[in-house]
Amino acid sequence: MPEHPLDPIFHPRAVAVIGVRSSRKDAFGSFYQSLREAGYHELGNLYPVNPKVDEIDGVKCYPSLLDTPDPVDHVISQVPAAVAPQLVDQCIAKKVRSIHFFTAGFGETGDERLAAVEREMIAKLRAAGIRAIGPNCMGLYVPSSRLAFMEGFSMEPGNVFLLSQSGANAGEIVGELTGRGVRFSKVVSYGNGADLRAHDFLDYAATDPETDVVTAYIEGVQEGRAFYEALKRCARVKRTIILKGGLTQSGTRAAHSHTGSLAGSAAIFDAVCRQSGAIRAETMEELHDLVVAASTNTRRITGRGVALIGGGGGGFAVLSSDAIDREGLTVPRMPAEAVRQMREFIPVAGSSVNNPIDANPPEERMEDMLRIVARAEGIDMVFMGPMYRPSRNQGSPDAQPDREERSKAQEEMAQKAARQMRALEDETGTPVVGIVRSGRMARRMGMSTESFFEAAYKEGIGAYPSVARAARTVNQVLEWRRYREGLPEIV
Amino acid sequence: MPEHPLDPIFHPRAVAVIGVRSSRKDAFGSFYQSLREAGYHELGNLYPVNPKVDEIDGVKCYPSLLDTPDPVDHVISQVPAAVAPQLVDQCIAKKVRSIHFFTAGFGETGDERLAAVEREMIAKLRAAGIRAIGPNCMGLYVPSSRLAFMEGFSMEPGNVFLLSQSGANAGEIVGELTGRGVRFSKVVSYGNGADLRAHDFLDYAATDPETDVVTAYIEGVQEGRAFYEALKRCARVKRTIILKGGLTQSGTRAAHSHTGSLAGSAAIFDAVCRQSGAIRAETMEELHDLVVAASTNTRRITGRGVALIGGGGGGFAVLSSDAIDREGLTVPRMPAEAVRQMREFIPVAGSSVNNPIDANPPEERMEDMLRIVARAEGIDMVFMGPMYRPSRNQGSPDAQPDREERSKAQEEMAQKAARQMRALEDETGTPVVGIVRSGRMARRMGMSTESFFEAAYKEGIGAYPSVARAARTVNQVLEWRRYREGLPEIV
Repeated sequence: MPEHPLDPIFHPRAVAVIGVRSSRKDAFGSFYQSLREAGYHELGNLYPVNPKVDEIDGVKCYPSLLDTPDPVDHVISQVPAAVAPQLVDQCIAKKVRSIHFFTAGFGETGDERLAAVEREMIAKLRAAGIRAIGPNCMGLYVPSSRLAFMEGFSMEPGNVFLLSQSGANAGEIVGELTGRGVRFSKVVSYGNGADLRAHDFLDYAATDPETDVVTAYIEGVQEGRAFYEALKRCARVKRTIILKGGLTQSGTRAAHSHTGSLAGSAAIFDAVCRQSGAIRAETMEELHDLVVAASTNTRRITGRGVALIGGGGGGFAVLSSDAIDREGLTVPRMPAEAVRQMREFIPVAGSSVNNPIDANPPEERMEDMLRIVARAEGIDMVFMGPMYRPSRNQGSPDAQPDREERSKAQEEMAQKAARQMRALEDETGTPVVGIVRSGRMARRMGMSTESFFEAAYKEGIGAYPSVARAARTVNQVLEWRRYREGLPEIV
Repeated sequence: MPEHPLDPIFHPRAVAVIGVRSSRKDAFGSFYQSLREAGYHELGNLYPVNPKVDEIDGVKCYPSLLDTPDPVDHVISQVPAAVAPQLVDQCIAKKVRSIHFFTAGFGETGDERLAAVEREMIAKLRAAGIRAIGPNCMGLYVPSSRLAFMEGFSMEPGNVFLLSQSGANAGEIVGELTGRGVRFSKVVSYGNGADLRAHDFLDYAATDPETDVVTAYIEGVQEGRAFYEALKRCARVKRTIILKGGLTQSGTRAAHSHTGSLAGSAAIFDAVCRQSGAIRAETMEELHDLVVAASTNTRRITGRGVALIGGGGGGFAVLSSDAIDREGLTVPRMPAEAVRQMREFIPVAGSSVNNPIDANPPEERMEDMLRIVARAEGIDMVFMGPMYRPSRNQGSPDAQPDREERSKAQEEMAQKAARQMRALEDETGTPVVGIVRSGRMARRMGMSTESFFEAAYKEGIGAYPSVARAARTVNQVLEWRRYREGLPEIV
């Protein structure tokens, strides 16, 4: 496959960060530090530019872009809006390939003069063959190129492509999904989308061999037809999840003052997604859950019968059953034969084997119980909390005196719990859905929520922070597969 | 007011815990340890009973209930179901006032012989004037009496009464709400409700002077008429929030095997709540949020116009506006005059003052901005994240090297943020709703979610873990007040 024209933008060999503040600490904002932390300077050339500073952490600092060594592929602009047009001229003179404007204060302000400045800059850049990301955005996070726009981002590459009009939301999606175990191929926050915009990135993602799942946070669709066509091309071949902000009256007003985006209707946007084979998330949490589902075993669930095991006592099981039912799934009774088999080793008092399963079999019979449940007729998936517990002699992770030991023990426990789920699915063919509640009760149980999410994801097991969210996600996946009929099977 | 007949049950002067296991560690299960930790033995007489153990932590242990000194008011039974009838005879001989059966394995199993044993025991106890809590439950948590059924429960008394058929849900509600700042007057987990049941506790709560807010988790209503009448009496004078488990098909099946409870319909239960002036929570999260609302300023909100300030950048503001709109509230534009006033000290680039407010005014003008927003026409409440930030010189709590220092700094920051909200409400008369998101992004901001919840609650400010949940709660409160018309004004 020939290289996509945008591909080099995600893999620059030299980056210049144009800072302006003179205070030592903030001379280059967080971008320079994030790139250093990501180790970009070990892969490519990283040039800090600031006329007021000579060096930063022992690295030479250049007074202007024009003073940096050739070539510079990518420029990150943190200059104030008033200085941006001058930087554009320098970029053209320097023959850079792309510029990312963190700089805000253009079209999104609603001020026509500022919008005109934005248009002029973009026209100049385009004429010179330079592509722009932004203005008013966070730009690129590409683990394989060691690009990052915030500190603390993982450098482990994954198969999820994220495009987000909002920088804050890009940061939040990356942060939360990383905590769920997800890793990214490429992330781009593109703000006002004055040059490169949603359809450009969807087109790129559709052909990117590193990407299997595409997710987008969008506020305004700037060219409806181009967007729809690109979405169709992308969603045909990649699992594509879209969250559109500004679909209500209040949200539309907010989107307008945020990225200058105009109104849209939920019904129309829903229809566009369905027709193209993408799935629409209604909230940020749904986006998180659907990305987890699309990149794990959850996407392979085909029925609605849930076996619910473990995770918090009878009252919890009752409310969980209610939640499952409300989301269009069911918690069917166990067949008599399965009940009989379990009753051979599970006593009657204080236990239920009728689904929800609320029982503590002897340690050595736990696997037997799980297999009986997963294989029972009418069961299409198993919802289960982490069942693995250290034996009484080992003691719980909480018993570890030292913080590091404790967190190591928690990680091990999470891995064992995740491997148990993987083994159960492999042996029975029934998909397993991990449930791990956060909050005080989870902490009491000595389970680190995040360790478990990470471990489950590595085993290909989709895990969710509540039964209600898991059930809702499964229901959406079933619906998604239904309306994709006729399209290639990718879900 | 004469003492309610159940009142002495919540204030026993002597408690016997009947354990049976012979392993040193678990000789008395967690109840004895929880009572010790709560300091019950400093207020009343605490007698451990176990024929297999001579003493526990230096305290004399009695071979049987009949060997304990007189009088014993309250007995906690952890004996196996088979031995329970014998303990009942001893309770009658000992003339105790009440017995709490943690013991399970009776009516809830669905086994008619075991249900008959339960009925016989209760009949015997009743004939002797002894009241029973349970079987199959966790019993009492009463801070003012130093009673607790789990370790780690707060001994600070509050004004919320909780009755819960499920012990696990009682524990979860206490744990989660304590983390939200709520404190309890009395909590009772009553399981199968073989003797004392929902209507008894509702009747008690209605007249309890220590209780302002009543909340209940119920699986089955055993005597419909008595329940409805008690609910009416209670909800008339106390803010009453009910979560009914088992309202769906799957949930009903689960409730039946949990506490032997029978089906109910959501529509009927909803009507019962509305007619009695109580409010129905549909999920555990709704129960948490409604208890917070009912015991803070949220219950005094009268309109639907939200000013949304701070807490996470433009994209977050757009999605939050969508969420507010979906829950039946609105995010109206700021009046021109308010915008003009704010623009005097807030620059145009990278800020929005049109609501949602996304602006960073100079530190010394922050209060001015907040007041302009809260007083603006069309604004009935302010949704805001913790705005208080330590000045640059002070550094953020995260900068504190030592763990204890850091957590102290976080607490102080949370208190200052909460006081800022209280002051804004006091000065402008506009209710303030606190929003504090948990998860990775909140941790990045150096805010301890729990510290902020606690601090806000102490200032009488209702705080919620997301904009969507806050908006939903406000909408429910408005609706609740509407259908309570004609009843005493307590919401």
